[in-house]
Amino acid sequence: MAHPFVSYTLPGQDTVRIGVVADSSVAEIADPGHPFMPGALAALAAQGPQAMREAGDRALAGAKRVPLAEVRLLPPVPRPGKIICLGLNYADHAAEGGNAKPSYPSFFMRGATSLIAHGAPLLRPRVSDKLDFEAELAVVIGRRARHLTPDDALSAVAGYACFNDATLRDYQRRTAQWTIGKNFDGTGAFGPWLVPADALPPGAAGLKIESRLNGRVMQSDNTANMLFPVAETLCLLTEALTLEPGDVIAMGTPAGVGYARKPPVWMQPGDRIEIEIEGLGILANTIKDDA
Amino acid sequence: MAHPFVSYTLPGQDTVRIGVVADSSVAEIADPGHPFMPGALAALAAQGPQAMREAGDRALAGAKRVPLAEVRLLPPVPRPGKIICLGLNYADHAAEGGNAKPSYPSFFMRGATSLIAHGAPLLRPRVSDKLDFEAELAVVIGRRARHLTPDDALSAVAGYACFNDATLRDYQRRTAQWTIGKNFDGTGAFGPWLVPADALPPGAAGLKIESRLNGRVMQSDNTANMLFPVAETLCLLTEALTLEPGDVIAMGTPAGVGYARKPPVWMQPGDRIEIEIEGLGILANTIKDDA
Repeated sequence: MAHPFVSYTLPGQDTVRIGVVADSSVAEIADPGHPFMPGALAALAAQGPQAMREAGDRALAGAKRVPLAEVRLLPPVPRPGKIICLGLNYADHAAEGGNAKPSYPSFFMRGATSLIAHGAPLLRPRVSDKLDFEAELAVVIGRRARHLTPDDALSAVAGYACFNDATLRDYQRRTAQWTIGKNFDGTGAFGPWLVPADALPPGAAGLKIESRLNGRVMQSDNTANMLFPVAETLCLLTEALTLEPGDVIAMGTPAGVGYARKPPVWMQPGDRIEIEIEGLGILANTIKDDA
Repeated sequence: MAHPFVSYTLPGQDTVRIGVVADSSVAEIADPGHPFMPGALAALAAQGPQAMREAGDRALAGAKRVPLAEVRLLPPVPRPGKIICLGLNYADHAAEGGNAKPSYPSFFMRGATSLIAHGAPLLRPRVSDKLDFEAELAVVIGRRARHLTPDDALSAVAGYACFNDATLRDYQRRTAQWTIGKNFDGTGAFGPWLVPADALPPGAAGLKIESRLNGRVMQSDNTANMLFPVAETLCLLTEALTLEPGDVIAMGTPAGVGYARKPPVWMQPGDRIEIEIEGLGILANTIKDDA
């Protein structure tokens, strides 16, 4: 696996740092002239893949390392400008919910307030116990883009990460609009880190994607089976809107989610949910009741 | 009308400034020690209504004024963290689309890339000519809030503005999720300015709301007729999520939109669309084809 990039803080400090991970330690990417702010990894990604690789290499060549276990990871991009999600993007998952194979993606959005990092508690709210998991591939945008074409679409991608598009199923279905069920605080797990696009197959296709609840495999599929692959999705989105560095696209989830099981499976406080995508590491969170 | 607050730039400059409007001129709210950044009006609002009023009064007491006609207005909050919209929030509009009176609001989101200011071109994209208007009341949040109650909900509101939730109707209906039809670049008109909450009736209720296309009244209703008023909406939202300073809630539109007319009315290049809400001024934009 290529060296992944992380956003993090050090114990007792608020400064958002970015770094590169090797041998279970983090090498900080520092730029004393331009102290990094939240969104720093997005700003670095916006400099292009070569600048990103060189910044990582410089950090790794330095002596300054902190054990990964001692930092507090943040979502790779802590405050994306937009988080656009796809529903029903794997045929088997569309079928398990009784939905026909779509001719256009079902787009909805999350706000950044719903995001949590790898290792942070995934929150079950006061008002619902219908908390479900959704293993997804997250695409992180690296440059401003509108009217992308199949030829240049993937050049807009900085990298990829795991995403858990955790959902309150009853709120998702309060109306025809899923948005509120997808926007509870502490439900959008994103991480553990960003893997640069050039370390993966084009469009992150052909990667095994899996979720495990308390070690039991719940979803297991391959990103090759997405109905709308990454490049096509970016073309469709940029017919409508401008993508910006740090924007995140969550690419939809395979079959096997909790609500479609008989009986349904809901995540409970104390449960550990893991999302693993080949080459992207493991995103793990423990469920906790919101205070 | 109380003095409204604006975000703006001066000719030939990129610096985002904030100011207060009186007698068709803008008095800049300056803080040399802490130069304002995009989101500055949200940061000021976060200091509370009294600090906001005092900052406005100090600016008006100073000599430095620029004619309103010489500044370029920006959306009152240029880059909100979240823009949450309600669908079907007036009974007559729900009925004109064949929808039953809802028991819960239909929430969806816009990204900040869709926003434009008063006076900016409202863009008809390459891929659709089904461009429709929606007059709406925008709520701008002034403080971090979760689990609001009917008693304290309105204390989270910094102020109000006009919003045009312009929509590509065919894209809105490509799937059951409206999001993509609501997120085209240059379609979310927001302004011309922010009127502090304490200058308006509680929850901005009882205000006449109107849209006019080339001077012809298309929608005319009253914010008293919202099915989910502002306070109730904020309570429902914060069951799920944290609102932050600068977040925007667009409160849904009354009957009279273009698609429901026989024959349908779509906005064309050169058309002028105005949204007027009593006490909040007039938000006007001219339609232009996206380049």
